[in-house]
Amino acid sequence: MSLIECIPNVSEGRRGDVIARLADAIRSVAGVRLLDHSSDPSHNRSVFTLVGDAAAVEAAVLALFDVAVTEIDLRSHKGEHPRLGAVDVVPFVPIEGVTMAGCVALAGRTGAAIAERFGIPVYLYEEASSNPARKNLEDIRRGEFEGLAAKMAGDGWVPDFGPRVPHASAGASVIGARMALIAYNINLATDRLDVAKKIAAGIRHSSGGYRYVKAAGFKLDDRGIVQVSMNLTNYEKTPIYRVFDTVKREAARYGVQVLESEIVGLIPSAALLSAAEHYLQIEGFKAEQVLENKLRLS
Amino acid sequence: MSLIECIPNVSEGRRGDVIARLADAIRSVAGVRLLDHSSDPSHNRSVFTLVGDAAAVEAAVLALFDVAVTEIDLRSHKGEHPRLGAVDVVPFVPIEGVTMAGCVALAGRTGAAIAERFGIPVYLYEEASSNPARKNLEDIRRGEFEGLAAKMAGDGWVPDFGPRVPHASAGASVIGARMALIAYNINLATDRLDVAKKIAAGIRHSSGGYRYVKAAGFKLDDRGIVQVSMNLTNYEKTPIYRVFDTVKREAARYGVQVLESEIVGLIPSAALLSAAEHYLQIEGFKAEQVLENKLRLS
Repeated sequence: MSLIECIPNVSEGRRGDVIARLADAIRSVAGVRLLDHSSDPSHNRSVFTLVGDAAAVEAAVLALFDVAVTEIDLRSHKGEHPRLGAVDVVPFVPIEGVTMAGCVALAGRTGAAIAERFGIPVYLYEEASSNPARKNLEDIRRGEFEGLAAKMAGDGWVPDFGPRVPHASAGASVIGARMALIAYNINLATDRLDVAKKIAAGIRHSSGGYRYVKAAGFKLDDRGIVQVSMNLTNYEKTPIYRVFDTVKREAARYGVQVLESEIVGLIPSAALLSAAEHYLQIEGFKAEQVLENKLRLS
Repeated sequence: MSLIECIPNVSEGRRGDVIARLADAIRSVAGVRLLDHSSDPSHNRSVFTLVGDAAAVEAAVLALFDVAVTEIDLRSHKGEHPRLGAVDVVPFVPIEGVTMAGCVALAGRTGAAIAERFGIPVYLYEEASSNPARKNLEDIRRGEFEGLAAKMAGDGWVPDFGPRVPHASAGASVIGARMALIAYNINLATDRLDVAKKIAAGIRHSSGGYRYVKAAGFKLDDRGIVQVSMNLTNYEKTPIYRVFDTVKREAARYGVQVLESEIVGLIPSAALLSAAEHYLQIEGFKAEQVLENKLRLS
């Protein structure tokens, strides 16, 4: 039994009736569970979190497109968040009993089906992309819906599936596979924003830090402290404990202590179990020794 | 949906056909999963691990007694492990969606049903016992099957359920509720047995240590190192990380390092997640933020 998480981002965050129909479309597919959905009116965007096996998740994404293509017209869509399509981004995330390669294959099948059924151009991203210039979502989405026709006519933007022109109302969609993303913050017992910013710069990939860390320093004005706010994009290769220990050590160099850390939203149990294994120096541990894993897998 | 673990210990570890019928009796109950069973011929004893909700687990225990009472006669039973009854001990352990009080109530219901259906005297133990002299399994079992009739005729041993005489062939059974037990070892980078023994004495309850730790020091001859071998009997009140840190600190006092630790058998995820929370200083974390918990509970 395989378990895949899918987090479609849809360009509608204001009309409650449409959001409800999008959610219902996902729920209507047998074998799929809609774990969460949230809408941001100023972004005019909704994020759905669903899980199931490959076939069920693919069917749910197609059902979601059915409603989104009918209801959303990007020509009249306004919002703060950049977007390229009615269903803007669809990542598949391996959770259990499935490899990243399995999710890459699923992204390909789903992209082909969307292009064929709806005439929407599809770009593959992250692990599903074999083109380095088209791995990052930001690179693919640059220019947004309004600049899409011109971008697609230029070099290097023939879509992976579908026509070489945007869908009139639904634009294009970006579909791919990636590791589960962990939103992780570490709060420091100081009000010195420069310390948080220096530590963030030290640990993030873009300025020389860990390969799978995005980070920024912020002030939490109401508490009089600062925060190193992070996205961990591959907790297997850049584990949470290594990031925590590095932040703690760097903070100490400024005479600053870690006050606390926080996990925002969902986290796969493996990401926390690996921290327990690390600090407790546990050798030879197997995931099936966790009672709940044994229950789920047996 | 509640989840209870039950670990019946049965006085048969040699006759494969009987062991298979005991396992089948458990498996025959809808809503119960037999996660594991193992038999020790020299102990002449088998341990079954099953899970389910309260009603299912109670039904499985009764089905197990059905076979055990028919097949096992303690008058001709020999083995190294102390025992009082054909089904010797039945602990119920709360795992999820159920409190300890719920497991105590289940132990009472099951004990009453066994006494009534099979005429077997039942003693409640651990959390299910309100008598301090009858909380510990060892105290109840002292004298074993062979001494049981005399013991029951004396003061203080009127059973909680059933007749005041042993069942002729099945003896008596001890039924109760307890926290999940964690078998946890810490290996030290030294061959000095005295260090392992001193540390074990320092952390175990019986000689002044933590309330829910049993510990002993051993030599691992084949590896030339020593081990502090432990049972953690309540990981909520005496958490694994506190025990680990204490052993590490005590070892350092002798100039000895912790080589590694190991979890033997199953462990509830909460016991390891609490270690991750501790070392990562995570505040405000909720169990339902773990993706797999959310899946299981939603």
